[in-house]
Amino acid sequence: MKNGKKIRNYHKKTGLPPGTLVYTGVHDYPVSFDGYFYNKESVDRIQADHPDKIKSDREESKNLWLNVNGLNNPELIALLGKRYNLHPLILEDVLNIDTMPKVDSYDDLLFISLKMLNWNSNSQSLESEQISMLLGAKTLITFQEKKGDIFDTVREAIKHDKSKIREKSIDYLAYALMDKVVDNYFFILNALEDLIEDAELDLIDAGNSITPRHLLHLKKQLMLLRRYIYPLRDELRKLPQEESPLIEPKTYKYISDVYDHLQNIIQNLESFRDSVSNLMELYNNNISNKLNSIMKTLTVVGAIFIPLTFIAGIYGMNFDHMPELHLPWAYPSLLIIMLLVSIGMIIYMKSRKWF
Amino acid sequence: MKNGKKIRNYHKKTGLPPGTLVYTGVHDYPVSFDGYFYNKESVDRIQADHPDKIKSDREESKNLWLNVNGLNNPELIALLGKRYNLHPLILEDVLNIDTMPKVDSYDDLLFISLKMLNWNSNSQSLESEQISMLLGAKTLITFQEKKGDIFDTVREAIKHDKSKIREKSIDYLAYALMDKVVDNYFFILNALEDLIEDAELDLIDAGNSITPRHLLHLKKQLMLLRRYIYPLRDELRKLPQEESPLIEPKTYKYISDVYDHLQNIIQNLESFRDSVSNLMELYNNNISNKLNSIMKTLTVVGAIFIPLTFIAGIYGMNFDHMPELHLPWAYPSLLIIMLLVSIGMIIYMKSRKWF
Amino acid sequence: MKNGKKIRNYHKKTGLPPGTLVYTGVHDYPVSFDGYFYNKESVDRIQADHPDKIKSDREESKNLWLNVNGLNNPELIALLGKRYNLHPLILEDVLNIDTMPKVDSYDDLLFISLKMLNWNSNSQSLESEQISMLLGAKTLITFQEKKGDIFDTVREAIKHDKSKIREKSIDYLAYALMDKVVDNYFFILNALEDLIEDAELDLIDAGNSITPRHLLHLKKQLMLLRRYIYPLRDELRKLPQEESPLIEPKTYKYISDVYDHLQNIIQNLESFRDSVSNLMELYNNNISNKLNSIMKTLTVVGAIFIPLTFIAGIYGMNFDHMPELHLPWAYPSLLIIMLLVSIGMIIYMKSRKWF
Amino acid sequence: MKNGKKIRNYHKKTGLPPGTLVYTGVHDYPVSFDGYFYNKESVDRIQADHPDKIKSDREESKNLWLNVNGLNNPELIALLGKRYNLHPLILEDVLNIDTMPKVDSYDDLLFISLKMLNWNSNSQSLESEQISMLLGAKTLITFQEKKGDIFDTVREAIKHDKSKIREKSIDYLAYALMDKVVDNYFFILNALEDLIEDAELDLIDAGNSITPRHLLHLKKQLMLLRRYIYPLRDELRKLPQEESPLIEPKTYKYISDVYDHLQNIIQNLESFRDSVSNLMELYNNNISNKLNSIMKTLTVVGAIFIPLTFIAGIYGMNFDHMPELHLPWAYPSLLIIMLLVSIGMIIYMKSRKWF
Amino acid sequence: MKNGKKIRNYHKKTGLPPGTLVYTGVHDYPVSFDGYFYNKESVDRIQADHPDKIKSDREESKNLWLNVNGLNNPELIALLGKRYNLHPLILEDVLNIDTMPKVDSYDDLLFISLKMLNWNSNSQSLESEQISMLLGAKTLITFQEKKGDIFDTVREAIKHDKSKIREKSIDYLAYALMDKVVDNYFFILNALEDLIEDAELDLIDAGNSITPRHLLHLKKQLMLLRRYIYPLRDELRKLPQEESPLIEPKTYKYISDVYDHLQNIIQNLESFRDSVSNLMELYNNNISNKLNSIMKTLTVVGAIFIPLTFIAGIYGMNFDHMPELHLPWAYPSLLIIMLLVSIGMIIYMKSRKWF
Repeated sequence: MKNGKKIRNYHKKTGLPPGTLVYTGVHDYPVSFDGYFYNKESVDRIQADHPDKIKSDREESKNLWLNVNGLNNPELIALLGKRYNLHPLILEDVLNIDTMPKVDSYDDLLFISLKMLNWNSNSQSLESEQISMLLGAKTLITFQEKKGDIFDTVREAIKHDKSKIREKSIDYLAYALMDKVVDNYFFILNALEDLIEDAELDLIDAGNSITPRHLLHLKKQLMLLRRYIYPLRDELRKLPQEESPLIEPKTYKYISDVYDHLQNIIQNLESFRDSVSNLMELYNNNISNKLNSIMKTLTVVGAIFIPLTFIAGIYGMNFDHMPELHLPWAYPSLLIIMLLVSIGMIIYMKSRKWF
Repeated sequence: MKNGKKIRNYHKKTGLPPGTLVYTGVHDYPVSFDGYFYNKESVDRIQADHPDKIKSDREESKNLWLNVNGLNNPELIALLGKRYNLHPLILEDVLNIDTMPKVDSYDDLLFISLKMLNWNSNSQSLESEQISMLLGAKTLITFQEKKGDIFDTVREAIKHDKSKIREKSIDYLAYALMDKVVDNYFFILNALEDLIEDAELDLIDAGNSITPRHLLHLKKQLMLLRRYIYPLRDELRKLPQEESPLIEPKTYKYISDVYDHLQNIIQNLESFRDSVSNLMELYNNNISNKLNSIMKTLTVVGAIFIPLTFIAGIYGMNFDHMPELHLPWAYPSLLIIMLLVSIGMIIYMKSRKWF
Repeated sequence: MKNGKKIRNYHKKTGLPPGTLVYTGVHDYPVSFDGYFYNKESVDRIQADHPDKIKSDREESKNLWLNVNGLNNPELIALLGKRYNLHPLILEDVLNIDTMPKVDSYDDLLFISLKMLNWNSNSQSLESEQISMLLGAKTLITFQEKKGDIFDTVREAIKHDKSKIREKSIDYLAYALMDKVVDNYFFILNALEDLIEDAELDLIDAGNSITPRHLLHLKKQLMLLRRYIYPLRDELRKLPQEESPLIEPKTYKYISDVYDHLQNIIQNLESFRDSVSNLMELYNNNISNKLNSIMKTLTVVGAIFIPLTFIAGIYGMNFDHMPELHLPWAYPSLLIIMLLVSIGMIIYMKSRKWF
Repeated sequence: MKNGKKIRNYHKKTGLPPGTLVYTGVHDYPVSFDGYFYNKESVDRIQADHPDKIKSDREESKNLWLNVNGLNNPELIALLGKRYNLHPLILEDVLNIDTMPKVDSYDDLLFISLKMLNWNSNSQSLESEQISMLLGAKTLITFQEKKGDIFDTVREAIKHDKSKIREKSIDYLAYALMDKVVDNYFFILNALEDLIEDAELDLIDAGNSITPRHLLHLKKQLMLLRRYIYPLRDELRKLPQEESPLIEPKTYKYISDVYDHLQNIIQNLESFRDSVSNLMELYNNNISNKLNSIMKTLTVVGAIFIPLTFIAGIYGMNFDHMPELHLPWAYPSLLIIMLLVSIGMIIYMKSRKWF
Repeated sequence: MKNGKKIRNYHKKTGLPPGTLVYTGVHDYPVSFDGYFYNKESVDRIQADHPDKIKSDREESKNLWLNVNGLNNPELIALLGKRYNLHPLILEDVLNIDTMPKVDSYDDLLFISLKMLNWNSNSQSLESEQISMLLGAKTLITFQEKKGDIFDTVREAIKHDKSKIREKSIDYLAYALMDKVVDNYFFILNALEDLIEDAELDLIDAGNSITPRHLLHLKKQLMLLRRYIYPLRDELRKLPQEESPLIEPKTYKYISDVYDHLQNIIQNLESFRDSVSNLMELYNNNISNKLNSIMKTLTVVGAIFIPLTFIAGIYGMNFDHMPELHLPWAYPSLLIIMLLVSIGMIIYMKSRKWF
């Protein structure tokens, strides 16, 4: 149970005073920083392996997107926090991979935590990576547990003049990144749907390959997925009401598009859940049918041959006075009677629609 | 699983920048435009196969209803969008058949997305087509995935002078079209109800034709139906609160009539859902009863003949000293004893109400 | 499935323009009108078979209660509607028996639709008739699908001077009629409760007369009842908030009394639902117990006689060299051994608490 | 079903005009009145068997608590109502034992209806008695269906100078009485808990004394309890919001204490409900295990002896040419082979962990 | 059932006037007092075994944290209450261990009641201890049922100059203590998760060690945990809305961190609940599979040997005229036929995928 590991990791922290920075994840990826100063006219690339090496001279009109890859060095993250004036509790949430997806609105900062999800097709299970976004005025700092390629299309877009991202304010960039993460969820849905369809086909054929263990495993993946997606949807729904100054009104149209995607995913998840329940029911029906079929076989054999064996037993008795035994046509007659008894039994069973 | 296809089609889009227009449906129907300029006094028919060919000279007092058949050419749709000044995100929703039924209220536009549903009696399953409506001031643009006859009665009405549609404002036309789509849902209910009743009759007779697979299939259709109808109902309930300037106050009375229809459909759906659950339970009861009946047969046969066979076995033994074997009345007496034993068994079983 | 019929009847209407009046019920009762002009001082009876024949001269101080029996002539209803200035959408709801119980508040009219319920003791099922009330200023028009005696006690009261109804305003009359309809629901509860109790007694005795079909039928009746009663309760709860000018503040006390009755009925319905679920569980337990008892019988018989038959079989073999066969005490000893084996088996089974 | 009786009694009323006073309970206790005029300084006892005999001269500073024992004489209650100016609808609720627990706030009166509960240890079931409280300015009238001792501790307190009740306003007295009634519910919880624990112990031992009937009975008691306690809790939660002038602000602290007790009871009830469901599951598991154990026995016996019987049958055949029959060591060898076959079977079954 | 004991202990109180102080727990730990006067500059330790011995001379700028260990002497608690002016109802809640976790806000006091939880690994069950906190202006009084080490890290922190606790106001201390208690809940989660995982492994292997009793026990622990954690979460969510003057605005950020922890725990609890339900299902599947496997064995044996035994029985009959008996090749031929029949049976059963 993957989830189990997290709870345990959480306890790296128990006993420490609140606010102590500890990375609770499993990725051992070194911390590095890359990003862009950009505005409509031009772009400057940033690359550094230490917060102090990040260029600090910024044209006033330029936005800063700083992406942090790797979280396994809390000291560096703390230094970054000092440089950009980030509250320790927020950094704690960034480093603690148990943080539930959420959007916290502060005076001069919007903190967005969400999960990047991947489908591991070997273990047939979900893998999650935590993505944090800190949206300030003209500044967006994003954190990933390890370097990934999910934001590459956004990076491409930012390098092109006249791209929408370059023209719009920094909150649009935050939207674009969130959109990438959420779009990726559809791949998970596809993987899960394939698994469910395969299971359904197998169970409809009353095959032997799908067992309750498989269905249980599927249920767990759906449960995990729910835990990552529901809170995010709820947080996005409440976002417009908070009227954060960091988000321009016209960006809400885009955010509500992400919300619609999440809503759509959740609807699919709900129907997957129903499907898995239905499959469990189908499995149980298969089991019942199999038992019926087994018992039917035993009963058919028993009901035909047990009475016949009794009849044979009668004439196997050694009484001195059994006149039938001496009649020449007795044996063939008895065989015919036995045949008729069996036929009668079979007709009775047919009439009960047993086969 | 039809639903599955949609999720996959969705991914035609993944990787593209947001706002790119892609039709995610399966209908390969060429795009064409037809419609009417109309007011109380007169009607002008519009027909075109390219947005630029649509007549643009409009008398100020006239309403425009423009219907778009076929969505498989995003370029043409984009051109239309430019001409009528439609936001790309809306057109994306028009072309993406995963869009959930919804009503989005913008400053100068009301966007209504809903599903036209048909019952495919071959595959015994639901087929959906997306209908989008863009209601502006004096303008209504509707989109269908392929040409259909559902709006024909409205077209007839619009041609007649003194019809209500001609006399009322354009929002009434939108209502009339929505009403047609929703009215059509009742045919689906009828088809489903027939299936459920047939299944119920079969299961009450403990017939063999209905299996869990059928019930599962039925459940899925109901699930799909729910997904298309619930959001629409919820959106219509919230509509009056948004006080859109595009809807005249007295039209709400009509919209609430559509809402009532949807509410009625949903109540029926809920009871269908209960019915299918009950049928599943009935099926399981049938299985249990069949197992009971099979086991009863085996037990009756076994309980009567196994003891008798034992008795016959006794007198089949070859001991030298078995005095009973030599008594002349032993054989008939034994037969009578066997008869009495069987009768006793049968009486016992009758007393347990086994048959 | 009664409910089914309604959905179908609904489609008498599909295809017609909205607002067309069609009666969708099954009662072929001719339309007639009766009622009263009344005030504290005096009463005038009204009786007519055509709207035009209804007396129109009314003293200003008098209230009018007009009751319409029979709905199978939409033309007459339309004429009535014109005379009393009723909106076509409302009349549509009056004639459409699929209308859910509801209270719609218009400027000068309160529309109340509810269901009169009867228990058909032959088919053991619920029958519903639609009652509509249009409450205007000093005017109450009520519609019944066929003539009934439910309002007779109110008619009696109206004829008596000094009756509360005569002294109070017209909204109190509406309350009194509603109260009659709701009071009648308790008879349905009693009928259902008797059925449930009978079923429970039968199932506790593990009788054979109650099958899942009966329970399913019961469930359906409860489901129908829910559909008629829940919406009415909800509408009555919301009524005071609408502050309709047609209802005097002090009448709300009485309406909240009707609400309390409905609440009470619903609480009973909920516990009936639980009861029927419990009965289903009891039925399944009975089935399981029966299977156990059947299998126990087979096992007892088998476990005793199958080994014995084997022993008899041994000494039925025809080997030349079986010394036991020639011992004089072998046969009686074997019989004793067989007896001991059976007793051992029975003791074992007793120890397992099988009987 | 106790509950059933109430629904029926309810119909003593059907057909009567609203507002007619009818006692719908079963207690035939004669109506009597007792109570106290009291203030900080002194107490006067009241005792009467007719409303007109109740002392009416009251010092202005004194509170009046009047307790009515027995409700079977509606005329006397009506007279009391006239004397203290009580609305007929309220008195109807007082006499109608179907009244759900509720708190109704009127201008000059607070009406509290709740249930006094007792556990009948013979029938192992819940018995309820209706308690009504009418709290006016400086006056509290309480109604009980029959004389009981539940309020005796309050009576004692009222007689003592310097008791809190004497010092506080009349709403505190209402609280104290309510507190007594609610405290009594804990006894019911204890009785139910004992039953549940006994059932659990029996089922864990796979005993025979607990059947689904017992569990069903338990469920019903819990259901009844819920119906009496939930509404009361909800009404008490809403009470502070109504800001009744009859309750002093500082009394709310005490009422919220009663609310906390009810909340605590409800939490226990919920866990009882879960427990009974779990017990049902345990019962079903016991049944399944028993079936498994029975079938195992049959299978063990059958699998060992059916093949052996067949082998014996072979050598019981009467063919002329069966050379084995004439070998001297054939019989002992066959016995050994049979032994080996049985041992093999037993090893196989052991390996499947059947015993 | 631990919970049972509590309900009973509750009744130590029934019959007493409200406000009487009784300790309803089981710990017989003598009452003692320890604590600190502290501010940024210095700390004074307090230790006493009687309220009167607690130092009362306090510098105005100093905060007081007073911790009470042991509650078994209500008189001492009452004296403490008098000294610090605490309302008797609050002290009642402190001493009554049935108090549900809650936060009550009074004018000059915030009362927080929560549960310290421990996992007893012998009985594999949850043990709870009640912690109460009374937060006043510059004063925090905490109550524990017995001396524990949970607050030791806080005590350490308070002794160090420059610790956050010393620098911040007293509400931060309350937060720090709550945080310790909640952090401890994660250990319970870990213990439960281990149990669930072990059960899952055993059931997936179809082992025999996990029975419904174990799962029932697990369910009960989860149920208890829910009862302690849900109310606390709900109370903390509502806390900011009450805008207590006793909590500084910037402390809410920390409290919402505790809330997030609780939310996280609850999400885990919910998934544990699902897991236990799934395990129950798995157990039932195992039982069904075992029954199927047992029946299959019996059927295989029966279906092969019962017909063969019949055939052998035929030739064991003693008819005079059975020509087959005298043919020399009859016996070997019959054996071969028997072999073929068995092989046919086995092939049939293989084709049904029975083994």
